[in-house]
Amino acid sequence: MNYDQLLSVARKQAEIGAKEGGVPVGAALFDAEGKLLGEGRNRRVQEDDPSIHGETDAFRKAGRQTNYRDKILVTTLAPCWYCSGLIRQFNIGTVVVGEAVNFPGHLDWLREAGVNVIELRDPECIKLMAQFIEQRPDIWNEDIGECEH
Amino acid sequence: MNYDQLLSVARKQAEIGAKEGGVPVGAALFDAEGKLLGEGRNRRVQEDDPSIHGETDAFRKAGRQTNYRDKILVTTLAPCWYCSGLIRQFNIGTVVVGEAVNFPGHLDWLREAGVNVIELRDPECIKLMAQFIEQRPDIWNEDIGECEH
Repeated sequence: MNYDQLLSVARKQAEIGAKEGGVPVGAALFDAEGKLLGEGRNRRVQEDDPSIHGETDAFRKAGRQTNYRDKILVTTLAPCWYCSGLIRQFNIGTVVVGEAVNFPGHLDWLREAGVNVIELRDPECIKLMAQFIEQRPDIWNEDIGECEH
Repeated sequence: MNYDQLLSVARKQAEIGAKEGGVPVGAALFDAEGKLLGEGRNRRVQEDDPSIHGETDAFRKAGRQTNYRDKILVTTLAPCWYCSGLIRQFNIGTVVVGEAVNFPGHLDWLREAGVNVIELRDPECIKLMAQFIEQRPDIWNEDIGECEH
């Protein structure tokens, strides 16, 4: 499986999100053969909806699947607890992470639960996220539940 | 705070879900004074959307909040990993659980993260869920990611 190719789908979603002024995290769900089932992006800002992270959006867009064990969730950024919980609850077999530099997530927690975690260090994903965190720390902190007020 | 009264709001949502033929889990988010911010229910069946659990729906309906530390999430059933992750990521301070008999959830994991977990043993919540699991084990297993096929 060409994980970089799968990542490009998620990264395109993140880039759309960046242009929209949103949190630039994109994700996509694929079947075992690499067929795209659903793609999405964080839309906290665009839809004023804190429940739409990239991963949950891609999961949603893929519709009801009876089994996720053989599915591949690709995300541009390491998943937060909310999205890690989604992965673990539905037993998503493989998670491809574009980068875990700007946000480390909980990759070991996923690995301990038997998830096949593939960590890439995609320069474009790193750059996109770093720029956003620098420009809009307020939205970023809100998105990861770290607002101080 | 009268937690049984708060639970009645979530339970009403679960009852609506049951009448719709859906997974009967309801939830509601309140502020520190007990003011309702959002209520919702599992709508996997109704909207063919596996991302809408009771807790995520109530969270969504409450809109963007800058801080969840002083909020109270009330749910008729112990939260799954997906919803536990939501609680932990956004630092929701208090979680009231209608019942943890039909599904134990991960209450200790939440407590270890500093969440104030209040476990009720509401007979109506227990009955509603037990009936659903008996009648529709297929949907229930799908909802908790335990389909065998």
